[in-house]
Amino acid sequence: MTVARCLAEIAEIGRDAERGGYSRHLFDGSDAPLRDWFRRSAQSLGLVVEEDGDANLWAWWGMPQPGEAAHVIATGSHLDSVPGGGAFDGPLGVASAFEAVAQLRSDGFVPVRPIAVCAFAEEEGSRFGLPCLGTRLLTGAADAASVLARTDAAGATLAQAWRDSGRDVTRIGPDLERVGRIAAFVELHVEQGRDLEDRGTPVSTASAIIPHGRWRLEITGEGNHAGTTTMDLRADPVVAFAGAVLAVRDVARSRMPGARGTIGRAQFVPGGTNVIASRVVAWMDLRALADADVHEQFALTIERIRAAVEAEGCTLDVHEESFTPRVDFDAELTATIAAALEPEFGPVPSIPTGAGHDAGILAAHVPTAMIFVRNPTGVSHAPAEAARDEDCEAGARALATTLRALAGSA
Amino acid sequence: MTVARCLAEIAEIGRDAERGGYSRHLFDGSDAPLRDWFRRSAQSLGLVVEEDGDANLWAWWGMPQPGEAAHVIATGSHLDSVPGGGAFDGPLGVASAFEAVAQLRSDGFVPVRPIAVCAFAEEEGSRFGLPCLGTRLLTGAADAASVLARTDAAGATLAQAWRDSGRDVTRIGPDLERVGRIAAFVELHVEQGRDLEDRGTPVSTASAIIPHGRWRLEITGEGNHAGTTTMDLRADPVVAFAGAVLAVRDVARSRMPGARGTIGRAQFVPGGTNVIASRVVAWMDLRALADADVHEQFALTIERIRAAVEAEGCTLDVHEESFTPRVDFDAELTATIAAALEPEFGPVPSIPTGAGHDAGILAAHVPTAMIFVRNPTGVSHAPAEAARDEDCEAGARALATTLRALAGSA
Repeated sequence: MTVARCLAEIAEIGRDAERGGYSRHLFDGSDAPLRDWFRRSAQSLGLVVEEDGDANLWAWWGMPQPGEAAHVIATGSHLDSVPGGGAFDGPLGVASAFEAVAQLRSDGFVPVRPIAVCAFAEEEGSRFGLPCLGTRLLTGAADAASVLARTDAAGATLAQAWRDSGRDVTRIGPDLERVGRIAAFVELHVEQGRDLEDRGTPVSTASAIIPHGRWRLEITGEGNHAGTTTMDLRADPVVAFAGAVLAVRDVARSRMPGARGTIGRAQFVPGGTNVIASRVVAWMDLRALADADVHEQFALTIERIRAAVEAEGCTLDVHEESFTPRVDFDAELTATIAAALEPEFGPVPSIPTGAGHDAGILAAHVPTAMIFVRNPTGVSHAPAEAARDEDCEAGARALATTLRALAGSA
Repeated sequence: MTVARCLAEIAEIGRDAERGGYSRHLFDGSDAPLRDWFRRSAQSLGLVVEEDGDANLWAWWGMPQPGEAAHVIATGSHLDSVPGGGAFDGPLGVASAFEAVAQLRSDGFVPVRPIAVCAFAEEEGSRFGLPCLGTRLLTGAADAASVLARTDAAGATLAQAWRDSGRDVTRIGPDLERVGRIAAFVELHVEQGRDLEDRGTPVSTASAIIPHGRWRLEITGEGNHAGTTTMDLRADPVVAFAGAVLAVRDVARSRMPGARGTIGRAQFVPGGTNVIASRVVAWMDLRALADADVHEQFALTIERIRAAVEAEGCTLDVHEESFTPRVDFDAELTATIAAALEPEFGPVPSIPTGAGHDAGILAAHVPTAMIFVRNPTGVSHAPAEAARDEDCEAGARALATTLRALAGSA
């Protein structure tokens, strides 16, 4: 098996004919086939599969010892995608973990510590708006009650979706004993920029995840007839929204290179061609190098948005959906990985990323590191996301070397 | 019966719980109940109901004579709505027609000419994007083949929707013999501005419908990850779209008071919070007092939109969805109506409107006029659309007086 062939097994699951790429969301039609694939892949390697109470999958090579101090070496990523996402963001980490286990097995390696391959639930937050849902629940970073009340675009609560999937909502919540048994977590992920392509190196470690906030903006104006309402009598929330989009862009630009600001999702209500909208709901994504930078970016952006909204005679409500502080990965673990990789790959760079990851959530609880695999397009969260076959194999070898180093001794 | 009680009979059909108001679209769940109501209302007045090949309903008081010159007096409006529309736009004209017939019947009036009460299909164009679908097909103003290929938001073609509703697509198309039998068409409609409220008069006639164009804009950029893509590397179609919204507004404002420009509907693809969109599809609605004004407004607006799109490194496609030239209503018919109304209402004003109507399509083929009923909010295409009960009754009396004047002699 190769990583590419492993990914080919799920290449037809969750394709998005309209957007291109993949739309794989929590408990949608792709969810069960992806979980089945995870189970089959793990079982063919002799791993024991379980699902925790938060819908995260765990495949065990050697079983953890209850009551013992942190001793598990965990790796993995997620199988869900953004709407119209690429083939690698998430699945590459899971497929590479299986391939690494397969290589270690065929090498006759016997782990001294148990190894777990994980697939965490709803990492992208595409259905219920909270990224890293599975690891946030697992670690208690998100409150189960408030998560259960979240709704998807169709108005279904997460509690209902959970039940409809046949799962037990009473099992949702933190499992700190499980988390506490992990001695190290390493997530392999496709790079989501062109840094490694520019450096000419197939793999790297990660230094940090830059902080990241998501806010929902509701702009309310006055719905009316597009033909009969003269321009001076309007309170058009779409016009105010246009000001908001430019505010997000301008403030982020003024704080380059660290800051990024994006509006990629919005709903116009009622949404008729010949109707001035009455309401716009938009989602704003802000990121910068430090937590305080994001807070300042937010304050400056909202001040400008509020001015645009008020100039149009509309009103603004702002709701924070999530805030993920900056995460610095474990320096000692990262150095161990770099040292293990050096014989094959030479000195690997350690680069920061603007993308959130389950590794970022777990880093607050266990020593955590990441391995990035080169992405020749630099594009991610879109069908053009890419990784060369030989780089995927290099990534799997790097992960196998890492697991050997971490799980080879007590 | 009163007009208000007549409208109350359909008050629960097609309510939109999310947007407020009504969403009544061609062949959706509200369509059959509204047609049933039309049939029952007509039959209780002794009218004979038929549906033409274009899904328009006709209720006959006296039957038209084949082969005879134009002799039918037709009135009516439509029963569909914009998404989240008001209770009056469309249904008021149908309910008032039934109430006018009831009054004439109870007065013992015997029409010399046949009277038809009509409910035309998909006047708002909310499902298939073409306003006045029913009258455009009936008169040949729209080509049946191109209409059948139109798709709704879910991708269903009109041909498929037509078949699914149990109708015969081979019957779609112009029926100029039917149109040619009409001697006069009068559409009663709620006013969609505050002109009559400001004038303190319950009813008026209409002088003209100002011209109106709809265009679909497709802005294509580069989909990417919102966290990892720095601001300088983006080609974000949402940013370009914001420029388009402001261009539409600014050009229309600069050409006040006649010009109106609106974007009230758009789709961001793929539409994820943490994703830079790859594509925006938006619908642009432009109106002005004269056809040439709209063409010039369009040229100026597109020039500015293209600049915004190119500045963002995106590309623009523009598709005209419809263009409806200015319509001047029949001066002689309008004067006849005004004269008939003067004894009760005094001299009624004749006002232009920025809204499209089936009357505007029919005006190219038969003498056509409109009666407006005062709207105290001036709001239309939104739940706040209003008409006082006593003004609705005044409207029905005005329509009865009109029908008596028009159908009372050969």
